[in-house]
Amino acid sequence: MLVNGVYYRTVWMESSNVCMINQLKLPHFFEIYKSTNHIETANAIKNMIIRGAPAIGAAGAYGVAQACFEAKKENFLVHVKNAVKLIKSTRPTAYDLFYAVERVFKKVEKAKDLEEAKKLSLEEAERIANESVEACKRIGEFGNRLIKSGSKILTHCNAGWLATVDWGTATAPAYFAKRKGKQIFVFVDETRPRCQGSKLTAWELLNEKIPHAIIADNAAGYYMRKGEVDIVITGADRVARNGDVANKIGTYEKAVLAKENGIPFYVAAPLSTFDIKIKSGDQIPIEERAEEEVFYAEGLAESFIEKVRIAPIGSKAKNPAFDITPAKYIKGIITEKGIIKPNEKNILKLFQRK
Amino acid sequence: MLVNGVYYRTVWMESSNVCMINQLKLPHFFEIYKSTNHIETANAIKNMIIRGAPAIGAAGAYGVAQACFEAKKENFLVHVKNAVKLIKSTRPTAYDLFYAVERVFKKVEKAKDLEEAKKLSLEEAERIANESVEACKRIGEFGNRLIKSGSKILTHCNAGWLATVDWGTATAPAYFAKRKGKQIFVFVDETRPRCQGSKLTAWELLNEKIPHAIIADNAAGYYMRKGEVDIVITGADRVARNGDVANKIGTYEKAVLAKENGIPFYVAAPLSTFDIKIKSGDQIPIEERAEEEVFYAEGLAESFIEKVRIAPIGSKAKNPAFDITPAKYIKGIITEKGIIKPNEKNILKLFQRK
Repeated sequence: MLVNGVYYRTVWMESSNVCMINQLKLPHFFEIYKSTNHIETANAIKNMIIRGAPAIGAAGAYGVAQACFEAKKENFLVHVKNAVKLIKSTRPTAYDLFYAVERVFKKVEKAKDLEEAKKLSLEEAERIANESVEACKRIGEFGNRLIKSGSKILTHCNAGWLATVDWGTATAPAYFAKRKGKQIFVFVDETRPRCQGSKLTAWELLNEKIPHAIIADNAAGYYMRKGEVDIVITGADRVARNGDVANKIGTYEKAVLAKENGIPFYVAAPLSTFDIKIKSGDQIPIEERAEEEVFYAEGLAESFIEKVRIAPIGSKAKNPAFDITPAKYIKGIITEKGIIKPNEKNILKLFQRK
Repeated sequence: MLVNGVYYRTVWMESSNVCMINQLKLPHFFEIYKSTNHIETANAIKNMIIRGAPAIGAAGAYGVAQACFEAKKENFLVHVKNAVKLIKSTRPTAYDLFYAVERVFKKVEKAKDLEEAKKLSLEEAERIANESVEACKRIGEFGNRLIKSGSKILTHCNAGWLATVDWGTATAPAYFAKRKGKQIFVFVDETRPRCQGSKLTAWELLNEKIPHAIIADNAAGYYMRKGEVDIVITGADRVARNGDVANKIGTYEKAVLAKENGIPFYVAAPLSTFDIKIKSGDQIPIEERAEEEVFYAEGLAESFIEKVRIAPIGSKAKNPAFDITPAKYIKGIITEKGIIKPNEKNILKLFQRK
């Protein structure tokens, strides 16, 4: 996508550095974070300099390639194996990360020496990034069919191009519809505690010149009940074999409210987000993040990004980062292979055709 | 209630000044705001130095008395009438304010001269404040019967003692249960955009030593689905004749989620919050507040209260302050006359018995 007229991906490799748009600085500052080794890359994923299931998948893939570039000839496989373990430990919920890291590592295992490992791992990481771009674009094409001119779309969190390598998942249909000349409007849930909606999705939509309004997460139900929302589209961090979806905390609330108000609720997810080894959503581990995210809010004060404490000293907080939306609330999952009704049969079919 | 061991009401009168706990400074600073005339009192209501339906009712009542104290003998009724108009214009959704202001004004109209108007208006305002305290305490007694030892209660926004003159509405059952020796736990929705949950409810619960956790509004459904919430209790800004409830934005979302998960959803409201002239909730005007509340978050940075901008410059926001929860989602309304199933018959009966 374009940022001030220049084409960017969310993450890419330059020699042995992994470069990424620093999402902790947006929307206030546009900066590129350059990670010089796989430990920095792992930390960048953990600290959410880069976030979003497909984006951290690509970053993780590049991180494994990076580990090959750092390794010494002797025992390079042990070095890379440890890197894989570290990178996989950064975020427990997102499936793309495990998928991508394992794909690259398989190439490393097959390599006859370090030089071949470097070459194969970089090629595979690039392939993963390119496939992700292509999958997201196709999600946009399929999702575009659900959007009429005049449609009002509600989205939660950021499953935009910043959450992928390009295009986004949940936002790809909107970007596609916009390019086809459709008039659309997007309700952007701010998505506390980290506010990825107001910080990232709103910034993307501004850059794409798509009319939108940020709303408190509490207001989504109000607009649904008023009949002002035509369709809800969110992303996914992991899709289980039965079609249950793990996604940003609050997704479940929006899905229930959409159902109650007869509004179609769609999830946009590439095949790399599906974890068919997991039977149902309740087996997906939910990451609990620090209380501080709830106690504080972060934003721009004059020219600095600053945290302000909202809550009193002494209170406790609970901060689950994701929730599970059972398949019954989801009208369809928009994948790069088409839109499916979420159930085991349809999901397994997607992988047979692969 | 006690603040650091000293008994306080939320609002009271000292000679011709209306004193109130400054809720814009909590939980970081405990300060008393002293309004010296009815215009300052109206502004304090508008700017939310004081908020919460019953609390602004009492503040409005004192404001009318204050207008009597300011008035000159000639045409005092015109002066007070204008004050009533100004005070009523500050917040369009809360019914207690209109109820209380009109009650005091009726006394002023009956007075034979200004001296009598001063006396009668002050007496009536005090009566309203005392009645509110008594009503809230009784709501606590009735609500306590719904709470078992070990209960986990979820509440939204602040319908605590700061939102009333004392005791609170939604929180009164918890305070009562605590005093009866029950072990309880409260989930506190932070309640964006103004965060009355994390700022005010959490502060009250800390002062009352009730175990609690602040959660992002997005996480309420997650805990409901996990079976960790036994009962939801919120306040109300206005109750229509059919039992529909206007309350803080997000209340509707929690009510739908409670229903979906088989959790009883209660509203606590004194009779002064019922507007039986209004047939159904959809006739209640919804206050739209400034976009800035959504763009920014406010809290403590070092030793100052500061606003930080979360959203990008250029985005729009929508900020409805309230929503309507249809009666069908509400298991019961806890009033000072008992707990009723919300419907027109039961509500009209409450007022016949009055």
